[in-house]
Amino acid sequence: MKLGDGVEQAIHCATLLAALPQGGLLSAASMAEFHGVSTSYLLKHLQALSKAGIVQTVPGPRGGYRLARNVTDVTLLDVVLAVEGPEPAFRCKEIRQRGPNPLASDAYAAPCQINAAMLRAERAYRQELRKVTLADLNAELAASDHGTAVEQRACQFFEHHLRGVS
Amino acid sequence: MKLGDGVEQAIHCATLLAALPQGGLLSAASMAEFHGVSTSYLLKHLQALSKAGIVQTVPGPRGGYRLARNVTDVTLLDVVLAVEGPEPAFRCKEIRQRGPNPLASDAYAAPCQINAAMLRAERAYRQELRKVTLADLNAELAASDHGTAVEQRACQFFEHHLRGVS
Repeated sequence: MKLGDGVEQAIHCATLLAALPQGGLLSAASMAEFHGVSTSYLLKHLQALSKAGIVQTVPGPRGGYRLARNVTDVTLLDVVLAVEGPEPAFRCKEIRQRGPNPLASDAYAAPCQINAAMLRAERAYRQELRKVTLADLNAELAASDHGTAVEQRACQFFEHHLRGVS
Repeated sequence: MKLGDGVEQAIHCATLLAALPQGGLLSAASMAEFHGVSTSYLLKHLQALSKAGIVQTVPGPRGGYRLARNVTDVTLLDVVLAVEGPEPAFRCKEIRQRGPNPLASDAYAAPCQINAAMLRAERAYRQELRKVTLADLNAELAASDHGTAVEQRACQFFEHHLRGVS
């Protein structure tokens, strides 16, 4: 079981956008440079965040991305599902119904107990991700030992890249 | 996030082996036929279960697979980790440390708060899988509406394929 690299990139970008001043925008290129990742690859994930209503895109040469919702209204689960899609990790292929001398389909009306158990675990996973908002993540960073230095580094970089505010 | 098809196949095979009479064995080919899957593909996953100490392999023309542990001592987590490997779904690439004007590495001594939150969700997922044993899964099946019919179908098939018992 593996989440794509896009998840880490999307969460870091979302937490950056969550820290911008009112009206501020960041370009995909500046977020890609800051995280040392490919812009074209990052654009794909930013589009997924936009499609999910997590970020807004402002078009034009001075355009960029900003959060579409309040920082307390975007959870880790929102970002993970936006990038990875809504399907659970376990995709039951109903192999219990394959093979020789099959039973009538009504014998399989109840969900497979294996699938049911795997989906209970998926619900527990999603419930944990649902508890954490972008505001929580930025507050945790700020409260950490080197949080101030990490935030200052980001501010220095974005002073030169911030758009949408005069 | 997606688990490979091998997980479903490995869990179904493990629950079958958990239901065998004392000393009984099943070949990879018979388990593949019963589940309508590729034998060569299934062999790979049975080898993973063997390497993890979940199943035992009895070599020879009348050999096959049997559970290596008590049915109450094998959990869904054991099988999932055997097939998918021990790594968590979220693999932090530390992109927080990339990009321009990097900080000294001691600024990143504490784990990234994003990675920490993703790992909390992984622990919740694994905890749910750890609660469910092969014995639980077979008991749930037996208690279900059509459990008897489903078990009878399996018994009929394996009457002709069961090895290791006279």
